[in-house]
Amino acid sequence: MSFFGDLLSTVFERRYRSALEPDLEQRSLPELCADLLGRSGEVSGAATARHILDRYTRMNEGERLEFFALLAEDMGLVPDAVREALAAFEADPSSQTYRAFAAAAEPKRQELARRLNQVPGATAQLVQMRRDLLETLPAHPELGPVDQDLQHLLSSWFNRGFLVLLPINWESPAEVLEKIIAYEAVHTIDSWDDLRRRVQPTDRRCFAYFHPAMPHEPLIFVEVALTRGIPGSVQDLLSDSREALAAEDADTAVFYSISNCQAGLAGISFGNSLIKQVVADLSRDLPGLEIFVTLSPIPGLMRWVQEAGLTMGDDPEHQRQCAAHYLLQAKRTNSSPRDPVARFHLGNGALVHDLHAGADVSPNGLAQSGGVMVNYLYDRAQIAQNHEGYAGGYQIAASPDVRSLAEMITTGQDQGQRDGEPSL
Amino acid sequence: MSFFGDLLSTVFERRYRSALEPDLEQRSLPELCADLLGRSGEVSGAATARHILDRYTRMNEGERLEFFALLAEDMGLVPDAVREALAAFEADPSSQTYRAFAAAAEPKRQELARRLNQVPGATAQLVQMRRDLLETLPAHPELGPVDQDLQHLLSSWFNRGFLVLLPINWESPAEVLEKIIAYEAVHTIDSWDDLRRRVQPTDRRCFAYFHPAMPHEPLIFVEVALTRGIPGSVQDLLSDSREALAAEDADTAVFYSISNCQAGLAGISFGNSLIKQVVADLSRDLPGLEIFVTLSPIPGLMRWVQEAGLTMGDDPEHQRQCAAHYLLQAKRTNSSPRDPVARFHLGNGALVHDLHAGADVSPNGLAQSGGVMVNYLYDRAQIAQNHEGYAGGYQIAASPDVRSLAEMITTGQDQGQRDGEPSL
Amino acid sequence: MSFFGDLLSTVFERRYRSALEPDLEQRSLPELCADLLGRSGEVSGAATARHILDRYTRMNEGERLEFFALLAEDMGLVPDAVREALAAFEADPSSQTYRAFAAAAEPKRQELARRLNQVPGATAQLVQMRRDLLETLPAHPELGPVDQDLQHLLSSWFNRGFLVLLPINWESPAEVLEKIIAYEAVHTIDSWDDLRRRVQPTDRRCFAYFHPAMPHEPLIFVEVALTRGIPGSVQDLLSDSREALAAEDADTAVFYSISNCQAGLAGISFGNSLIKQVVADLSRDLPGLEIFVTLSPIPGLMRWVQEAGLTMGDDPEHQRQCAAHYLLQAKRTNSSPRDPVARFHLGNGALVHDLHAGADVSPNGLAQSGGVMVNYLYDRAQIAQNHEGYAGGYQIAASPDVRSLAEMITTGQDQGQRDGEPSL
Amino acid sequence: MSFFGDLLSTVFERRYRSALEPDLEQRSLPELCADLLGRSGEVSGAATARHILDRYTRMNEGERLEFFALLAEDMGLVPDAVREALAAFEADPSSQTYRAFAAAAEPKRQELARRLNQVPGATAQLVQMRRDLLETLPAHPELGPVDQDLQHLLSSWFNRGFLVLLPINWESPAEVLEKIIAYEAVHTIDSWDDLRRRVQPTDRRCFAYFHPAMPHEPLIFVEVALTRGIPGSVQDLLSDSREALAAEDADTAVFYSISNCQAGLAGISFGNSLIKQVVADLSRDLPGLEIFVTLSPIPGLMRWVQEAGLTMGDDPEHQRQCAAHYLLQAKRTNSSPRDPVARFHLGNGALVHDLHAGADVSPNGLAQSGGVMVNYLYDRAQIAQNHEGYAGGYQIAASPDVRSLAEMITTGQDQGQRDGEPSL
Repeated sequence: MSFFGDLLSTVFERRYRSALEPDLEQRSLPELCADLLGRSGEVSGAATARHILDRYTRMNEGERLEFFALLAEDMGLVPDAVREALAAFEADPSSQTYRAFAAAAEPKRQELARRLNQVPGATAQLVQMRRDLLETLPAHPELGPVDQDLQHLLSSWFNRGFLVLLPINWESPAEVLEKIIAYEAVHTIDSWDDLRRRVQPTDRRCFAYFHPAMPHEPLIFVEVALTRGIPGSVQDLLSDSREALAAEDADTAVFYSISNCQAGLAGISFGNSLIKQVVADLSRDLPGLEIFVTLSPIPGLMRWVQEAGLTMGDDPEHQRQCAAHYLLQAKRTNSSPRDPVARFHLGNGALVHDLHAGADVSPNGLAQSGGVMVNYLYDRAQIAQNHEGYAGGYQIAASPDVRSLAEMITTGQDQGQRDGEPSL
Repeated sequence: MSFFGDLLSTVFERRYRSALEPDLEQRSLPELCADLLGRSGEVSGAATARHILDRYTRMNEGERLEFFALLAEDMGLVPDAVREALAAFEADPSSQTYRAFAAAAEPKRQELARRLNQVPGATAQLVQMRRDLLETLPAHPELGPVDQDLQHLLSSWFNRGFLVLLPINWESPAEVLEKIIAYEAVHTIDSWDDLRRRVQPTDRRCFAYFHPAMPHEPLIFVEVALTRGIPGSVQDLLSDSREALAAEDADTAVFYSISNCQAGLAGISFGNSLIKQVVADLSRDLPGLEIFVTLSPIPGLMRWVQEAGLTMGDDPEHQRQCAAHYLLQAKRTNSSPRDPVARFHLGNGALVHDLHAGADVSPNGLAQSGGVMVNYLYDRAQIAQNHEGYAGGYQIAASPDVRSLAEMITTGQDQGQRDGEPSL
Repeated sequence: MSFFGDLLSTVFERRYRSALEPDLEQRSLPELCADLLGRSGEVSGAATARHILDRYTRMNEGERLEFFALLAEDMGLVPDAVREALAAFEADPSSQTYRAFAAAAEPKRQELARRLNQVPGATAQLVQMRRDLLETLPAHPELGPVDQDLQHLLSSWFNRGFLVLLPINWESPAEVLEKIIAYEAVHTIDSWDDLRRRVQPTDRRCFAYFHPAMPHEPLIFVEVALTRGIPGSVQDLLSDSREALAAEDADTAVFYSISNCQAGLAGISFGNSLIKQVVADLSRDLPGLEIFVTLSPIPGLMRWVQEAGLTMGDDPEHQRQCAAHYLLQAKRTNSSPRDPVARFHLGNGALVHDLHAGADVSPNGLAQSGGVMVNYLYDRAQIAQNHEGYAGGYQIAASPDVRSLAEMITTGQDQGQRDGEPSL
Repeated sequence: MSFFGDLLSTVFERRYRSALEPDLEQRSLPELCADLLGRSGEVSGAATARHILDRYTRMNEGERLEFFALLAEDMGLVPDAVREALAAFEADPSSQTYRAFAAAAEPKRQELARRLNQVPGATAQLVQMRRDLLETLPAHPELGPVDQDLQHLLSSWFNRGFLVLLPINWESPAEVLEKIIAYEAVHTIDSWDDLRRRVQPTDRRCFAYFHPAMPHEPLIFVEVALTRGIPGSVQDLLSDSREALAAEDADTAVFYSISNCQAGLAGISFGNSLIKQVVADLSRDLPGLEIFVTLSPIPGLMRWVQEAGLTMGDDPEHQRQCAAHYLLQAKRTNSSPRDPVARFHLGNGALVHDLHAGADVSPNGLAQSGGVMVNYLYDRAQIAQNHEGYAGGYQIAASPDVRSLAEMITTGQDQGQRDGEPSL
C-alpha cells in the first residue's frame, strides 16, 4: 500500500520520451513552445511538455532569464489585438466575439503553463519556476507581468477547494517529514529526534495542507501544542524534559509555529483557512478544548524600539509595555499594523490576548523581539466581529490587559513594510 | 481506510453554517455575491459560499435564469474599464498596471466561481451549474459569455495534470459503479448483472478519469475487451455465454465504448489522454498485448446514406463499401470528416482499419449505421504521423482494404455537423 | 488505490505452478500430503499446497469423503505414540520431551492445514473445506475428530485480536456488497435497490468483521437503524417511504439484523464482540445516542406455543404475554432459555426490554413467532451484572413490564434444542 | 488516509478500562487468569485481558519469573488427565471424547494466550512476552514447556499465509523506518541519512514482512541492491559516492542484508519465503533482472580457521581458498555445514557461487571472516534440485570455481554450533 501511488505510467513515459527526445533535443525553446501551443499540442503534447520542463530544470540562471524573456516578450499581451477584439465584442456581443476577446486578453504564456501541466510532476515544477522568477524579479521588473500571470494561474489551481488537510505525525512518510524539518521557519528543528518531539507525543499535533498534484510537498503547516492553560514561553513548550499530557486532558490548543513552505506560491494565502480548519478538526476530535490561541513571535519589535528611540531594558513589565504599544499603535502608511504577524492574525479575526517577556530566549527570538512573545486568541464568539473591525478600518482587538500595557508608553511613528504572508 | 475520505470537517460546517444562516437567509443573491467578492471574503467566505450554492441548488428554472443574468450583467465585462486599464498599462507597463489590466479584463464572475469553490462539494456543483447554463443557452444566447468564462475556468481546473486514472472493477464502490451504469452512452448497461459482465471477467477492463475534488464522479470512462484477434461484432464481445480469456493470453485490447459523463464539462476534452494512458498502462501490465483497436459505432452513416441517395441493402459487402466511403469521403464544410467518432479517433492519430457488417444489431445500432461498425487502429508506430496528417489538412489514414472498399462507391456531398466530443 | 490489493504475485504463482504441475498432477493425494509435511515442505511447499487445494476444489462429494478419510485415518491421533511421549515427558520433563509430547498429541492434519495455508486464498479454502466437512458429518460421525481439529485451528486463527471491523456502506466494493445480499439471514434483501436502502440513508449503518487473509468475505455483519425512540415494528423500520433522519438527531441505535456469513466457521462466536464494538464505535461518533437495543425475531415461539397447548389468537396483548412467558420461562434441559436468540443476547448481558405484536408480518415472521418481535436492551450500566447472573445460573434480566406480561400466562415445559450461534 | 488506521476504538477502551480497573487492580494475577479462562471470559474478557497485559508490562524481572512459573505450574500439562482422556477416547472414539482429549492435551496457558490476544496490541505484547521468556530460559530450563507452547501458538498465528510483504522506502512511515535502523543486524545503519541511502536511490530496494495485527513492527527485512554484474565488495555497494543506476538498467539483484527483527519469534522461519517472494516480485516489476544473488558474510570463518590451525594471511587467493574449504567441508556433527548463513541459503536451494577477499573491511567483517564475503546464487532452474540434495543429505551445491578453490586446502574438523535463523 503506497502512500502516494504513481498516478501515471512512468515506464511508458520513459520509453515514449526517449523515442522522441532526439528530435526534441534539436529544436529551440521558442519552437518547442510554439509546438506545444499549436495544433498538435494535444496528441504529442505530453512529450513536448516533458521535454520543455526537463530542459528548464537543467538551465543555468542566464538561460532561465532568457526563457522568462521569451514568456514576457513573445507570449505577452498584444494591446492592439485586445483593443480590436474588444471593439468586435462591443459591436456584436456573442459567444464567438467574447471568446475571441478572452483569448486576446489572456497572454499565451498562461495557456503554455496549462499545457506544460499535463505531465506528472509538472505542477511542482511550475511552482519552482515561479520561485526562480520571483528571485529574478527585483533585478528585472519588466518580468512583473509574467509573474502576475503565473500567480493568477497558480492561485486558481491552488484554490482552497482543492487543498487537502493532512495530519503530520510519526507515521507520516519520511519524505514528507524531512520537508517539515527543512521548511520550519519559526523555531528551527535540529534533527529527526527534535522532529519526533514535535509530532509524536500525545500532546502535540501538526497539520499541513497538500495539493493532490504535489502530494510530496506540504504547502503550509502549523504545529500545535495541547496544554492546560495558556503557556507563556516557548522554552517550556519545547522542553525535552516536559512530561506529555494526555490529549483528552488538555483545555487549550496553542498554535506555536506556522510555516509557509513554497516560495513559488508567495501571495497565495493559505494560513487563514488552515487555522480555521484545524480549529474545527481539533474541536471535533477533542471536545475538551476550550481555548485556541497562538504563541507568536513579534518579528518587528526590536527594530521599531530602536527607531522609536526607546530601549527594551531588563524589566519584563517594561518589555511587555513596549510590545503592547508596538502591536497596538505602530502603523504602516496605510494605517495597518506594522507587525506582519499581527496583520495576519488580526486579519483572521484574532485578538491580542497577552504578552510574555523572556518567552523566546533563542538568539533569533532575542534579536527580533528581545525575547517577548504574544498570544493571539481565536475566540469563536468574536472572530467575525473582530475581523469586520479590522477589515473595515484596521481596528485592533485586544484584551483590556494588553490595552493597559500599551498605554503605559508613548512614542513615535511607524513605516511601511513589505507585504506577503510571514512565517508566524 | 475509506475509499473517499471526508476531507473537510462536515460537523464543523454544519454548526458554523446554521449559526450564520438566519442572517444569510435574509440577504439577496446580489448582496451575497458582493459579500463573497468583498473584503471579508476570506474569513467568513466559506459560509457565504456554502449558502449561495445551497440556494442555487433549490432554485427553479426561472430563478436560475435570473442568477445567470446576474452573472452576465452585473459581473460581466466592462469594456471602458478594460480600455482604461489597457491604456494605463501601455503608458507604464509595470506589475501594478498589468495586474490592474488583468483584473479589468477578467469578469468578476470568474473570481466569484473561484470563491464559491472553497467549500466541500463545490466543484461538482459548479459543473452542474454549467450544465444548467448549457441547457439554457439555446434560448438565451446572451448568456454565451458566461458560459465561455465557466468553461475557461473549468478547463483550467480539469487540466490533464490534475486528473487521476482509476480502474473500475467489481471491487469499486457501488456508488461509482451505479454511475457507470447511468453514464454508459454507447451500449446500454441493463442491470448490476450486466455491469458485472463488463468489469469482472478476467478479459474485461474499465478505466475512468476522476478529479480529486469530485471523487464520486467519473469524468469519462472507457470499456475494454481483451481478445485474441480483432473482433468483428459487439454481440460476440458482450455475449453472456462467451468464455472469459485469461488476460495474459490476449493479444488485442478492444476499446468498445467510451462515454463522457459530465455534461457540464462539454468542450473540455479528455478522450485522447484517456486512450493514450490506458494503452500505456495496459502495455505495461500485459506485455502480450500487441494490438490496440476500437470497435466503434458509425453514428452518422444511415443519415448520410439517405442524404446521398444510396441504399444500404442486405449485402454485407455493399454495406461495408458504403461505410468506407462515408468515413473516408464524407466531409463537413471545413473539410473535416463528417462522422464525429471518426473525427475523434483520426484526430488522435488512429487509422480506419476494418469494417464489419452486422456488427451491432441493436435497435440503435441498426438505426444509426445499419449494423455496421468500424475498427480504428492505434498503431503506436504511426500515431504521430497519422495525427500530423490529420491535423495539417484532415488527411485520413486508412488500411488498404478500407481504401479499396471506399472506392467501390461513388456519390454525393457532406454537410456541417455539430461539434463536441461524442460518446464513442 | 485498490481496496484489496493483491498481496502475492499471482503472475509468478501462475508460472511457478504450471512448471511444476505436470509432476504434481501424477502424484496421489497421500503422497502430496506427505510431501507437504516432509522435509522439502518449506521450499517447494507453496506449489504443493496450491496443487492440493486446487485438486480439492475440483473434487466431487465422493472424492472429498476419501480426502476426509485420509485426514481421519492416516493423519489422526496415534494413542500409543501419545502415551509413550507422555511417559517420556513425565520421566524427564524437558523442552525436548515436552515438544515430542506436543507433537504426538496433535494429529498431523493440523500441521497439514497450517502448511496448506501458506498460499494466497488458502484460508478461505480451508474455511470452505470445513463447511464441506460439516455437511458430511451427520452421515459420517467418525470424521468428528477431523472437524474438532479444524475448528480448533480456525478458532485460533480467527481470534478476536485478528479481526477488523469495517463499515459497510454505498462506497463499499460491489464484491462485498453482493455478499451482504447473499448472507442476510434475517430480513431478506431483494435487490441492489433494497440493499441501498439498508446502507446508504443517513440513519442506517452496517458493520462487518473481516479477517485480513479473507478480505473479500465478511464473517458476520450487523444492520443498524438510527431512530428516535425504540421502534416496535420491522415494517416501519424498513419501509421504502419513510423519511431518513439526520444521524445526529437519533437517540437510539437499533440492531435489527445480525447474520453469520461463514458456515465453515460454525461454533466460533463473533456476535458478542461485534455488538460491543459497534456500540463503542457508534457512541464515539454519535454522542447523541443513548439507547442501544435490538429488534429481534423470536424464532422458537410458535413451536413452543403449539407444544405447550396454547394458541396465539388475534389479541396483541395475549400474543405479547405468550412471547414474554416463552422468553422468560421456557427452558432447555440445562435450564438455559429455549430461544436461541434469547440465549445469545442474554448471554451478552442484554435484558428483555419490550415485546411487539404485529411487528414482523412477513411469511417467515408469522410462521416463526406469529409476528411478535422483541427488543433486547444493551444498557451499559447493567451489562456486566446481567451477564454475571446469566452465566452463573441462567438468570434472565427483563423489564418490569415484560415480567408482568409473562406472569399472565401459566403453562408447559421446555425441551432441548440445537446449539450454535443463530442469525439474530 | 492513515498508514495504519486504528482498528479498534481506543477511546472506548480507555473508558471501559478505567471503569473496571479499580476492581481488577485488587485481584491477584492467578485470579485474573482464572477469570479470563472462566465463563465470563467472553463478555468482560477484554478488560481483564487488557489489565493482565498492562500489569505484565509493568513487572520487574522477578515478577515476570513468578508469572512464568504460574504458567508453567498452574497452567501446565496434567498427565493423569491426558491419560484418562486418551483412554476414554480409545474406548469410544467420538467428537466428544476427542474434544475432551484435545482439551486435556493442550495446557491451559495456550487458551490463556488466545484470550489475552483479543485486545488491540496484544499480539505484539505476547511476542514481547516470549522474548522475555527466552531470556529467562537458560537460567530456568523448567520453563521450556511454556516456551514450546508459546512458540507453537505464535507459529500458527504467524503462518506464512497471514504475512504481508511491503516495500520499505523513503515514503514509508518514520515509525517503521526507525525500526529498520534499529533492527539492521548485518551492516549497521548509522543515521537517517545512511538509511536514506539504503532505501531511496533508484537502485536500492528493501522489503519487509508484516503481520496485520502488528502493523508497526517489521518481522524480517531484506535489503537489495540492483546492479550490473555481481558485486564483489560491500564497500562498493554502500559507497556514498557511487552513482545510482536506473532500475531498468540493472541485470542483477543483490540481497546484501537480511535481518530478523523479533527475538520473540525465534525459531519461526520467515527468510526462505521472504527471498522467494522478493525474487518473484522483482522479476515481475523489472524484467531485465537475470541474476539473483546474495553478498553474504561468513560469520564462522575466522573461528574455524583458528581451530583448524590455519592462518588467513594477506594473500586474497589463499583467503578465498580458506573460505571455500570452510563453506564446503567444515561440518557439524549432524553433517550439516558449520556456517549458519550457509545453512540458511543452501537449505533454500541456493549454491555457493563466488568468494571475494577484502569484501567487508569493517571491524566486524574483518573479525568474523577476515574480510571475505560470499555470493550465494539463487538460480531458478536449479533451486529445487539444490534443495533436494541439501535436504536429503546436506549435499552442497557450488560453482566449479568454488569447488576448485576448496580443494586447494586440506585440513581439520568441524563442530556443532547453535541453531536458529541468523541475520544474513
